[in-house]
Amino acid sequence: MFESAEIGHSIDKAAFDAEEPILREALLEAQYELRAQARFPVIVLINGVEGAGKGETVKLLNEWMDPRLIQVSTFDQQTDEELARPPTWRYWRQLPPKGRMGIFFGNWYSQMLHARVDKRIDDAQLDQAIDRTQNLERMLCDEGALVFKFWFHLSKQQMKDRLKALRDDPLHSWRISPLDWQQSKTYDRYIRHGERILRRTSRDYAPWYVVEGADKYYRSLMVGRILLEGLQAALALRERPVRQPHAAPLAASLDNLHLLQSLDLSQRLDKEQYQEQLISEQARLSRLLRDKRMRKHALLAVFEGNDAAGKGGAIRRVAAALDPRQYRIVPIGAPTEEERAQPYLWRFWRHIPARGHFTIFDRSWYGRVLVERVEGFCPPADWLRAYGEINDFEEQLSDAGVVLVKFWLSIDRDTQLARFQEREATPFKRFKITEDDWRNRDKWDQYSDAVGDMVDRTSTEIAPWTLVEANDKRFARVKILRTINEALEAAFARD
Amino acid sequence: MFESAEIGHSIDKAAFDAEEPILREALLEAQYELRAQARFPVIVLINGVEGAGKGETVKLLNEWMDPRLIQVSTFDQQTDEELARPPTWRYWRQLPPKGRMGIFFGNWYSQMLHARVDKRIDDAQLDQAIDRTQNLERMLCDEGALVFKFWFHLSKQQMKDRLKALRDDPLHSWRISPLDWQQSKTYDRYIRHGERILRRTSRDYAPWYVVEGADKYYRSLMVGRILLEGLQAALALRERPVRQPHAAPLAASLDNLHLLQSLDLSQRLDKEQYQEQLISEQARLSRLLRDKRMRKHALLAVFEGNDAAGKGGAIRRVAAALDPRQYRIVPIGAPTEEERAQPYLWRFWRHIPARGHFTIFDRSWYGRVLVERVEGFCPPADWLRAYGEINDFEEQLSDAGVVLVKFWLSIDRDTQLARFQEREATPFKRFKITEDDWRNRDKWDQYSDAVGDMVDRTSTEIAPWTLVEANDKRFARVKILRTINEALEAAFARD
Repeated sequence: MFESAEIGHSIDKAAFDAEEPILREALLEAQYELRAQARFPVIVLINGVEGAGKGETVKLLNEWMDPRLIQVSTFDQQTDEELARPPTWRYWRQLPPKGRMGIFFGNWYSQMLHARVDKRIDDAQLDQAIDRTQNLERMLCDEGALVFKFWFHLSKQQMKDRLKALRDDPLHSWRISPLDWQQSKTYDRYIRHGERILRRTSRDYAPWYVVEGADKYYRSLMVGRILLEGLQAALALRERPVRQPHAAPLAASLDNLHLLQSLDLSQRLDKEQYQEQLISEQARLSRLLRDKRMRKHALLAVFEGNDAAGKGGAIRRVAAALDPRQYRIVPIGAPTEEERAQPYLWRFWRHIPARGHFTIFDRSWYGRVLVERVEGFCPPADWLRAYGEINDFEEQLSDAGVVLVKFWLSIDRDTQLARFQEREATPFKRFKITEDDWRNRDKWDQYSDAVGDMVDRTSTEIAPWTLVEANDKRFARVKILRTINEALEAAFARD
Repeated sequence: MFESAEIGHSIDKAAFDAEEPILREALLEAQYELRAQARFPVIVLINGVEGAGKGETVKLLNEWMDPRLIQVSTFDQQTDEELARPPTWRYWRQLPPKGRMGIFFGNWYSQMLHARVDKRIDDAQLDQAIDRTQNLERMLCDEGALVFKFWFHLSKQQMKDRLKALRDDPLHSWRISPLDWQQSKTYDRYIRHGERILRRTSRDYAPWYVVEGADKYYRSLMVGRILLEGLQAALALRERPVRQPHAAPLAASLDNLHLLQSLDLSQRLDKEQYQEQLISEQARLSRLLRDKRMRKHALLAVFEGNDAAGKGGAIRRVAAALDPRQYRIVPIGAPTEEERAQPYLWRFWRHIPARGHFTIFDRSWYGRVLVERVEGFCPPADWLRAYGEINDFEEQLSDAGVVLVKFWLSIDRDTQLARFQEREATPFKRFKITEDDWRNRDKWDQYSDAVGDMVDRTSTEIAPWTLVEANDKRFARVKILRTINEALEAAFARD
């Protein structure tokens, strides 16, 4: 994999001087076109051997291009806010918006590679990390991002020579850290594991570019040209390439029996049972959230459901159990401008609770496979891939100790009609009912299909869906509280 | 000040039960109207004696109203990301957007009060903290925010009784922390210093409401009614009240001599001098940023100037001195939707560098008194108050160790014309010139006035303006780098 990057590529200064101004101007043009189109972000990952010119090349790119449109991010020490959340959170918060370029030093590849070289993880764990990375990159690319992955390479001898040269140069000796010297000792392991990573993560949509780093003219022109050609091609496309989904449609049941029809919506609680059970479940939740074991976890509850199924009321009964400092409610409506400039999961990542905290999503990332699917707000290819992306996302949450509970509040059509009419008749409830609600109601069957597919594809052991029979609000509220409590207790028991 | 909150106010349960549902419905209505208008945020500050029902009242408000539109924030331990920035940063990042309500527990008042009670600060320092707070609140109100400040009160005896009652109640004993008991010992000091704070910060635009906390019905209804009446009045206003600025206009010089005219724009550097000085200043900057003393500081450079004065080129020469991991460039254009929902300084606060870091603003908060003033994007009252707000803002940065350098790049009209024409003639520079640039050029004199006023009112010892003679780009670039270096060295020398 690295052979052709150890053969001593070089370019003479004259050739470089002749090409540089042309390349530079073209890169600038491409960069402004990128900003003008504002259709996709560019993500540049910088990896490779120490001393192979990673820093210098990024510096040069910033000189060649307009640095105001480039965000360079490093990921060294995690801050305590980052440590309290899933590991990927720190990358999500640094993603460049559409029209911009983000250069990631010390990204997910260096984290896993260093962990493997230092023997903090074994091969199997490295492969797990690789898998997660592939999911992330595929998602970014499917969302339109243009990803460049550079590996700056030096042979062992080249690396030693380079470090020595740097050490002996008073202007640059500060650049070498003890870590760099250490790498010259672990070089073989570094390359072996690096190759495994590159081999497994080079994909058509996000290939690796291995650049020999010994000659600065050569490596600079190589990187510049690769960026330029990639940018120009993507800018010329004009349309975001959409991966072809599987040819077969989502399977509809042959007997026309749907999951939601199997619910017994007649389940009820009388007032007395309700009061008693509600208070006892609320006290239980309050106790669990104050439990010491909660420090290792976060709690995340997702509320979805038919219009007028009682999401708001249920959320209030959950909140009523708690001190308002203990939870945060995130209502999900139309995305803001800054959110539209990012992959669709970005707006949820920004609200992921830190350990010890509880966040309630009033509607959620499932909008992608519900309203966006049914209303045609995104093409089928986009919502079809969302099931897998959501499962990946939720696995990351779960791995980080987030206890995830997801509720679909289900009512039947008659109940919905009665509630709509009641809302229209009650002054302070009128805000709750809009034209949209009536329109959605006409698409009842389509929504039922979407819910069925959603549950089939995203109800997992780590993040199961709880279908809530919500014709009776009391029954629903108690079931929701109890489900949250049981999920927390199960998580504590597993610790 | 607290006398009438110690006389044993109470309301019987029947009266409470009669009023609660009406109040509740009205609060909900007001809350939805607030969201619908989305004209201003509501900020509720919760302070007062322990055991006086602060937590319970906020909990009740969340039950009465729609908790999805309320953000409750606590400010206990600072995270390391917060510790690396000016103290106010943590409040700015939690500000509710227009249309929402934010409830701040443990806000700026509790910080300063506890500090004074624990004798970490003296009276003079308390007064300084009070001053800063007044500036902050006045700014928030001038930006349209509706601020409620509640002090929940108990007499010393009431407080002791309350703590005992809580301790003896198994359901609530967990609520009392050792800190609460401590407060019963420091009660007198707490009240004395609390009174000083309330006295000095109760203002027409943000008055204090002292609520006796002993009786839960009384305090709940009081707080609910105050909120409701304040909300209804503000919602009915329809127009943001604008403070009347001083009657006299900004003084124009009688002799028509302007600051910018006094610059000697003929200063030049020849190519050789330039190369030599540029490289030496770049090396100096690179060294300074790696200096250990930099860990206590952050560096923030603001670039403003005439169109085509060479801001971009100058920024690139500064960046060229550095590793791209050491700086971040923030280009300021039109505000995004999320930024428009906040006070105008919010979009700059979010990019304030952490200690050890360097941020370059390509245009800045001075847009308020430049383009927004000249183009009439905001009423005179708004930009007139901005001078003071900006000085307050910069003082906070400076107090936190941020080294602030501000550049106005000045060219004459002929030079600008020549550069505009050159830009139009050069393919990869055409993006740099727009209709707007030509229009701005017609307002040359108005911009000159605005720059003069800006420098007169915001060039301070802690954050001086550097006027840069920029007809010669080489001269300008070197002067800028040298100024940054000198500012850093001066800051290090003061440590």
